[in-house]
Amino acid sequence: MTVTVASYAAQSATDSMAPFNIERRFPEQDDVAIDILYCGVCHSDLHQVKNEWGNTLYPCVPGHEIVGRVTDVGTSVSKFSVGDLVAVGCLVDSCRTCESCKEGLENYCDKYPTMTYNGIDHRHGKQVTFGGYSKHIVVNEGYVMSVPKNIDPAAAAPLLCAGITTWSPLREWNVGAGQKVGVIGLGGLGHMGVKFAHAMGAHVVMITTSPEKGADAVRLGAHEVLVSKDKEQMKAHRGSFDFLLDTIPVPHPLDPYMMLMKRDATLALVGAVEPMPGFHGGMLAARRRRIVGSMIGGIRETQEMLDFCGEHEVVADVEMIRMDEINAAYERMEKNDVKYRFVIDMASLPEA
Amino acid sequence: MTVTVASYAAQSATDSMAPFNIERRFPEQDDVAIDILYCGVCHSDLHQVKNEWGNTLYPCVPGHEIVGRVTDVGTSVSKFSVGDLVAVGCLVDSCRTCESCKEGLENYCDKYPTMTYNGIDHRHGKQVTFGGYSKHIVVNEGYVMSVPKNIDPAAAAPLLCAGITTWSPLREWNVGAGQKVGVIGLGGLGHMGVKFAHAMGAHVVMITTSPEKGADAVRLGAHEVLVSKDKEQMKAHRGSFDFLLDTIPVPHPLDPYMMLMKRDATLALVGAVEPMPGFHGGMLAARRRRIVGSMIGGIRETQEMLDFCGEHEVVADVEMIRMDEINAAYERMEKNDVKYRFVIDMASLPEA
Repeated sequence: MTVTVASYAAQSATDSMAPFNIERRFPEQDDVAIDILYCGVCHSDLHQVKNEWGNTLYPCVPGHEIVGRVTDVGTSVSKFSVGDLVAVGCLVDSCRTCESCKEGLENYCDKYPTMTYNGIDHRHGKQVTFGGYSKHIVVNEGYVMSVPKNIDPAAAAPLLCAGITTWSPLREWNVGAGQKVGVIGLGGLGHMGVKFAHAMGAHVVMITTSPEKGADAVRLGAHEVLVSKDKEQMKAHRGSFDFLLDTIPVPHPLDPYMMLMKRDATLALVGAVEPMPGFHGGMLAARRRRIVGSMIGGIRETQEMLDFCGEHEVVADVEMIRMDEINAAYERMEKNDVKYRFVIDMASLPEA
Repeated sequence: MTVTVASYAAQSATDSMAPFNIERRFPEQDDVAIDILYCGVCHSDLHQVKNEWGNTLYPCVPGHEIVGRVTDVGTSVSKFSVGDLVAVGCLVDSCRTCESCKEGLENYCDKYPTMTYNGIDHRHGKQVTFGGYSKHIVVNEGYVMSVPKNIDPAAAAPLLCAGITTWSPLREWNVGAGQKVGVIGLGGLGHMGVKFAHAMGAHVVMITTSPEKGADAVRLGAHEVLVSKDKEQMKAHRGSFDFLLDTIPVPHPLDPYMMLMKRDATLALVGAVEPMPGFHGGMLAARRRRIVGSMIGGIRETQEMLDFCGEHEVVADVEMIRMDEINAAYERMEKNDVKYRFVIDMASLPEA
């Protein structure tokens, strides 16, 4: 049994986003049914809609930064009740049996997690998954998180991707007080990186090519701004960073940033998940530096991040849009004209 | 006061190695004077002699894998006595005051350690340092190590560079029992990596482009051989390694090796200390993999390695040469025709 749900979809790589009705399953015993209130707009939504990674399954309903209200729960659901404010992120299922799944790192599932959209739902007839640009969603309770009551639920939506993507490596590598942390690139990810590193107690340096972003970086929590095009500034910071969070979303040379790192410092790459240019092996060796990857986060750590955001009142800086403004929002996003995340008010989408 | 010491030196990038007399200081109060018995021949000796890094100071007396006998000690020397079998590695001094020096990681000295040869000795009138291709050397006791009595001192010489270069990252990243470790490249470094990883209790896989090296790798301690040119073999090992020790001495793509790594696995780059080709950021992120550098080791960990070698009877596989065979040895080294390290018997060099 299914229910018809209003959504916005791309029918091909060249079509605009437009209204489209999808079918959602009725909640099974371990499912949570959710009315979607807000959905963040991630740059990967745009990549996927335009088939820039060559793997898009159409019709494509994007959206993996979902905040909503529980409307129904299956008979065996224990963690959630009707009326709860909840969140769904980039994944809605995983194999649940591999080592990573057992450790709560479902994002690194050996069999690949079921992505919230453009994924294949192996437990439901290999249906293509549809994301959060829709009125309702049904998700296994193991992949649903609670949203703290004291934070703005709309501004919480981007925590589910931009938030956890930056939170996870900061936590994994124990960023905190007494450390000098550089956040490279001030976009959706970078602005969350600055907020988290600040809230974790680190000395935060915004590293950007754009001096004009400095004031905003300081407002977000940066203690200093380092303009990476300025050779003198780069020299002054040489060998001084404990950790660099690299959120640049396109291929870029790492050597100038490696120069900034102390002995045993870590550069975590979270933005450019594509072929990168080379790096100098001697520069890596000379100070025993590290380049590490990180990809979103597991369900448990995402909940920990949400709880931390409640305690520290951290949310994204968002610009609210109506569902029918999504195409214009994509155009602005392509010009980096957003501070720092669009969030769709799903009340603007009529029911199917 | 100085003493004249016989050595072998290159007078320019195009000259062959030839006899040359150098001056060594008389031991100061914290110095150890050493009769050099054996000196290993490292590939970097050849790079330096030929000025391939563009920084060679001529005349150049190479050699940083030194084993010898103490002949004299300064008045304040407490760790060594006349007659002791001792070793000197890649560094003979450092600033002694920076954080790395204080932690016993003199190899990562903020002011750069004084290299055993082609270094600048700031405590002695900025003289250029001369290495182990010589009869005697005088070194501050803080940069001298003890050689266990139960191992062959000639075969111990390569431990001072090839040994510690591979030991340090294996220890730093806690390689041991229950882990699957790949050693990439079977040369001077690689053969030590195989021996150490085996002695540390890991399951060791030799990863090589050359199937003909397989038998020797097994003799050295590898439990398996993986021929990296064989796509089926590479596929069979995909995602299974906890640690990769990459000893390839030239630039090379990392992506094929990254595919072999488990979640949270580490690839330690110790061979190619030069510009490397690019890598796939997504492959790094997808399993939270790490690429780390490592450069030789500190004095304390070098002593720990030597002690471990005594306990586990680990030494290098060496081919002994006379000092006057060094030019021929360099020619063979350029063709990778050595199993696995040349060591100079310094008795073959007459006194000055």
